[in-house]
Amino acid sequence: MTRETLAYAAQAPTTPLAPFTFDRRDPGPRDVAIDIAYCGVCHSDLHTARGEWAGTLFPCVPGHEIVGTVTAVGSEVTKFAVGDTVGVGCMVDSCRTCPSCDAGEEQYCTGTGFVGTYNGPDKHLGGHTLGGYSDHIVVDQDFVLTVRHDAADLAAVAPLLCAGITTYSPLKHWGAGPGKKVGIVGLGGLGHMGVKIAAAMGAEVHVFSTSPGKRDDALRLGATDLIVSKDADQMAAQAGTFDLILNTVAASHDLDPLLACLKRDGTMVLVGVPEHPHPALNIGTLVFARRALAGSLIGGIAETQEMLDFCHQHGLTSDIEMIDMAEINTAYDRMVKSDVKYRFVIDIASMKQAA
Amino acid sequence: MTRETLAYAAQAPTTPLAPFTFDRRDPGPRDVAIDIAYCGVCHSDLHTARGEWAGTLFPCVPGHEIVGTVTAVGSEVTKFAVGDTVGVGCMVDSCRTCPSCDAGEEQYCTGTGFVGTYNGPDKHLGGHTLGGYSDHIVVDQDFVLTVRHDAADLAAVAPLLCAGITTYSPLKHWGAGPGKKVGIVGLGGLGHMGVKIAAAMGAEVHVFSTSPGKRDDALRLGATDLIVSKDADQMAAQAGTFDLILNTVAASHDLDPLLACLKRDGTMVLVGVPEHPHPALNIGTLVFARRALAGSLIGGIAETQEMLDFCHQHGLTSDIEMIDMAEINTAYDRMVKSDVKYRFVIDIASMKQAA
Repeated sequence: MTRETLAYAAQAPTTPLAPFTFDRRDPGPRDVAIDIAYCGVCHSDLHTARGEWAGTLFPCVPGHEIVGTVTAVGSEVTKFAVGDTVGVGCMVDSCRTCPSCDAGEEQYCTGTGFVGTYNGPDKHLGGHTLGGYSDHIVVDQDFVLTVRHDAADLAAVAPLLCAGITTYSPLKHWGAGPGKKVGIVGLGGLGHMGVKIAAAMGAEVHVFSTSPGKRDDALRLGATDLIVSKDADQMAAQAGTFDLILNTVAASHDLDPLLACLKRDGTMVLVGVPEHPHPALNIGTLVFARRALAGSLIGGIAETQEMLDFCHQHGLTSDIEMIDMAEINTAYDRMVKSDVKYRFVIDIASMKQAA
Repeated sequence: MTRETLAYAAQAPTTPLAPFTFDRRDPGPRDVAIDIAYCGVCHSDLHTARGEWAGTLFPCVPGHEIVGTVTAVGSEVTKFAVGDTVGVGCMVDSCRTCPSCDAGEEQYCTGTGFVGTYNGPDKHLGGHTLGGYSDHIVVDQDFVLTVRHDAADLAAVAPLLCAGITTYSPLKHWGAGPGKKVGIVGLGGLGHMGVKIAAAMGAEVHVFSTSPGKRDDALRLGATDLIVSKDADQMAAQAGTFDLILNTVAASHDLDPLLACLKRDGTMVLVGVPEHPHPALNIGTLVFARRALAGSLIGGIAETQEMLDFCHQHGLTSDIEMIDMAEINTAYDRMVKSDVKYRFVIDIASMKQAA
């Protein structure tokens, strides 16, 4: 039993996204069926749809920042009921038995690896998973999140499912909070959420950016100031003062001047994998102050729920620009130029209106 | 008031070490005067004496792995008495007021920086400090360590003052102990101490080496096995299994295959700064398992005492080859070829016998 789903898909790396229909499975005993209201647009969507990363499976329906309403639940579902407002992020399954899954860190699953919301193996219907640029999705209840925000905020909640958790998880893991000086490198989709969340955690937040023009926005989002990272004097003035730096910039750049801004025992966490490697490190910058360079990937399901609840409690959502589904290709072109403040969100209803 | 000291010094980067005399200060109120019995030979000595690192001050008397006997103490000295067996490591002073000094992490002093046992600023006599390739040294009591090992072991204790603490500190800091799988990269002066100490801490220890011929020694020193790091199959078999890797190799090498051996949340700690940079990192290796790359520098004074006591309690010393002072230039040439198991130690008495 399946249900036809209206979506937008790329059929090949070089073709724009276009209308596409496919069948979702009907909900099994542990499944939740969701009518999608909004889906955020992540850079990963673009990289995957355009085949910029190895391994894209076509047709490709991107989208892993999903919010919507439960329309049906399986017989064994206990966590959700019809009418609930819910979210789905980057994962729809994992092995559930490896040490990472046991620890609630499904994003680091070492069994099968986590199953991506799109471009992962679909164990139910075969083929590969298809994401949130669609009107409807069916997900195991263990990978569905409860959304407590008001209905008016729903579109701006969608990006929390990836941009929110990608920044919340390392900020929490490395102890951002009162008394801590935290740097956020890059003020884009991830960075602007990093600023909001770190500030809400009680940390003193500073933005590192190559763009001095983003200062007003940085302050509005909760930062104390903006440090122009290409200004050697401004960087030197920050040497040895940061407890934690969350680096959201995936483009290749010199990490040494940022690492030098860390205190003894400070950590810089990278959440983006550059297409071209960052320049080789000056290891002395690590050794002479016991600094660390680390990486972090989204967050576990329990932590994603914790993040959503934290954002609800602190009144945090993403700054978004709403688009119709038909505008997605233009939106991708603008994302490449960083021309968005700070996240595109697709109004999924626009697909039906256009149909 | 000063006292003539017999030593070996390099007068320029290109001249061999040769006999040299200079004056040490007489002990001030907080000073301890020490007759040096043995001094270990560290790679840093060679790099500094040969001007391979920027900033060598000549004449250069290297040596920061010092053991000897107290011959005089100042009026305010409470921690030591004449006749005590003591050690001096890489530092003889620091600012004592910065956050790192307050935390007992003088090696990361951010005030003046720590004062090196050689090649540092000498605030007492002016000029620069001169190290342990000498028959006598005067050191502030706060930078003198108590040695509890038996007299017969003293020569083999000397290398603990640098090679011992350089490995003990990160092993302790990152939690080596029972239930932990710890890798030691490189089986030289540092690495062989890392194996002994990590094993004594109760960890399961594996050596990564490019030299399969070192397996017997690795096992004898306390390792479970030796992984040939240039064998891709052996490395692949270790993927994702290590809690901590202590990397003692300062020569430029690819860090990615070693980082891939870490579990989720594992850390690889570098204790050497390469002359030529390590190749650029694959950031995905960090991101996809929340791994970290860190650095560590020797250890604080309190921790150095803790390390000496730990080694005494566990019967640990360095494997050494004793040399006369006059053999130091030959020893340097052999060190460049890694032809030593595992640390040269100078019998300082050989200077007087030769004089």
